[in-house]
Amino acid sequence: MTLVVQKYGGTSVADPQRIREVAARIKRHVQAGERVAVVLSAMAGTTNQLVAWVHELDPATYDAAEYDQVVASGEQVTIGLLAIALQCLGVPARSFLGWQAGVRTDAAHGKARIKAIEVDAVRRCLEEGRVAVVAGFQGLSPDGRVTTLGRGGSDTSAVALAAALHADRCDIFTDVDGVYTTDPRIVAKARKLDRITYEEMLEMASLGAKVLQTRSVALAMAHKVRVQVLSSFEDKPGTLVTDEDEIVEDQIVSGIAYSRDEARITVAQVKDRPGIAAGIFGPLAEAAINVDMIVQSVSRDGLYANLTFTVSRADLPRAVAVLERHRDAIGYERIVADANVVKVSVVGVGMRSHAGIAHKMFATLAAKGINIQAISTSEIKVSVLIAEEYAELALRSLHSAYGLDGA
Amino acid sequence: MTLVVQKYGGTSVADPQRIREVAARIKRHVQAGERVAVVLSAMAGTTNQLVAWVHELDPATYDAAEYDQVVASGEQVTIGLLAIALQCLGVPARSFLGWQAGVRTDAAHGKARIKAIEVDAVRRCLEEGRVAVVAGFQGLSPDGRVTTLGRGGSDTSAVALAAALHADRCDIFTDVDGVYTTDPRIVAKARKLDRITYEEMLEMASLGAKVLQTRSVALAMAHKVRVQVLSSFEDKPGTLVTDEDEIVEDQIVSGIAYSRDEARITVAQVKDRPGIAAGIFGPLAEAAINVDMIVQSVSRDGLYANLTFTVSRADLPRAVAVLERHRDAIGYERIVADANVVKVSVVGVGMRSHAGIAHKMFATLAAKGINIQAISTSEIKVSVLIAEEYAELALRSLHSAYGLDGA
Repeated sequence: MTLVVQKYGGTSVADPQRIREVAARIKRHVQAGERVAVVLSAMAGTTNQLVAWVHELDPATYDAAEYDQVVASGEQVTIGLLAIALQCLGVPARSFLGWQAGVRTDAAHGKARIKAIEVDAVRRCLEEGRVAVVAGFQGLSPDGRVTTLGRGGSDTSAVALAAALHADRCDIFTDVDGVYTTDPRIVAKARKLDRITYEEMLEMASLGAKVLQTRSVALAMAHKVRVQVLSSFEDKPGTLVTDEDEIVEDQIVSGIAYSRDEARITVAQVKDRPGIAAGIFGPLAEAAINVDMIVQSVSRDGLYANLTFTVSRADLPRAVAVLERHRDAIGYERIVADANVVKVSVVGVGMRSHAGIAHKMFATLAAKGINIQAISTSEIKVSVLIAEEYAELALRSLHSAYGLDGA
Repeated sequence: MTLVVQKYGGTSVADPQRIREVAARIKRHVQAGERVAVVLSAMAGTTNQLVAWVHELDPATYDAAEYDQVVASGEQVTIGLLAIALQCLGVPARSFLGWQAGVRTDAAHGKARIKAIEVDAVRRCLEEGRVAVVAGFQGLSPDGRVTTLGRGGSDTSAVALAAALHADRCDIFTDVDGVYTTDPRIVAKARKLDRITYEEMLEMASLGAKVLQTRSVALAMAHKVRVQVLSSFEDKPGTLVTDEDEIVEDQIVSGIAYSRDEARITVAQVKDRPGIAAGIFGPLAEAAINVDMIVQSVSRDGLYANLTFTVSRADLPRAVAVLERHRDAIGYERIVADANVVKVSVVGVGMRSHAGIAHKMFATLAAKGINIQAISTSEIKVSVLIAEEYAELALRSLHSAYGLDGA
């Protein structure tokens, strides 16, 4: 008997009418002979309201354990309502809070990690022929307090539950109908992918294609959970995220991702000597600022270097402040900061066995007169930093160049 | 060290600003050297919204366990927010859901009864010098599901917690500043009582003075918990509900209560024979309709009887339908139903040792031309049923007659 974990996000359970539609969809799966465990988010908007109340009382120093107590209440509402809606359709169902479903986490309130799921109660419920409706986003700490997994944590809850139950599939229902070759709001010819590997999905997710939470993809990869991303508003297959050997298409490049959450800093005219990179990146690391792409160039006479790197846009002012505080120690002439940049990435597991992917990228951008400010690569992706004004042009050109355009 | 349980209702925690005010009040008690455990309701309006969603999905047959899962989420929000507000004022605090506070109930979802409170965790919290903030209205069933105690159940939670902790006092903060000799909205000269016995409070509460939930008063009486009712918007003493031997005033009548939730039924011209009362009240009991005041009168020739009794207004249509269904078995001529009646009661433990209380009541009403439709009495109260249009006149006249008028 097929066992499926289904996860519905906040817009899919935003009000009783939508909850009723979710119940009807689950009923179809049950009638098709599947055993279904459901993971839910809170109603869209609820968590924001709860967070706003916390911040109204204490904008800064609030106790993360109490924050979790407050924000975990949202899923409690939706799981109970969905169980009622299912029963109303004649589908036996029972709701489980995180602790009732045996979701054990560490004590890192607000961003807890799942340590284990003791699935006995949920499994018993499923074996009795009932739908188990589980609160996503939440768990229980070792000292018996309610924890939450951080924003988007319900995806992680669903994948972890699917792993613990050895489910055949984990269906993530969302407001998009799958993973696209690139952002369809920018590139009209973007195509929905039938399949994508975990590795590619990780790159797509962390590079800004906000379909699945990165942590949930990493977890799915580690436990070989077959994840399907699909729309909760339509009734058609989505994109299956799976192992490389399940991918049959011979597609070298799977998609073009981009991220606007980038800012570039150039530390100019640093006296070139051993240890200058450490002198710059040490203070930034201490300030918990992540640095991504790094380019070092040396002046013609070999005496000075320019160091260019990217940070997230939100970190830009802090990063500049840190560098200015360490100006004497680093010994640079000036700092140039630019928040109007985007990172565009070509992603595909096929790159491992195919040369020329990066070359085609650079040539395509050059042909459009787009200057590349920095480059980084991994086994399955090539990323470039370009001026933000060229973002749409770059995406469309690359999408065509790699033969991804749909009908 | 004095240990106090404080309970705040929904209007007292209706938004972050009011929660901040509650935190400030608790801080004053802590600074005065008291240990404080707090029991909270949900924000005013929240529970109604949650119940409305349940009813929208399933107006009738919904699973009470899932109903409880949904509606118990409201207190989770307020306890976390109050803990944060307290910490913000420098008062160490920690929140507890019903199950975290060890509140064990039976499995009667929607109207569960507290079986025991395993107070170890809450007591430890208090001994560490922290305020324990406990979700009212909720507990855990024997099979690990969230239960709720029914409307107004937070009062019961507070009294039960006070009993389990052997607290010195249980302060119920509400939107009125105490228990009055009668409804001050009707009788301008109503006085706030400094003290009232459990027995009197039970009569006042169940007769319609909606200050304290009846169950909580019965529980307080059983466990000798000293309960104080006071305003959360002012800073002055309220009314202490306590044992008779703590009452020093020599007041024979403590108050005049009334209830509009009454309806009168007369079953007229029943053939008088043994068993007619059973023939009428048996079917009503089977339909779970509670009957209150009962008057039987026999015709002059002794052949026929009229049976008059009261039910709650909501039950009136069902009660009439039941009687009509059993018309042949009962053998009556007609049914007269009247929903425009009120029950007015004179309450006081002093009655036990003083004659003439009932006589004064009847004489006072007669002097105003108010007809008495039914009478019932207990050790500490006399109740009469009168036409609703006389309710205010009756209350004011009786309030004066028993010397209860304030300045």
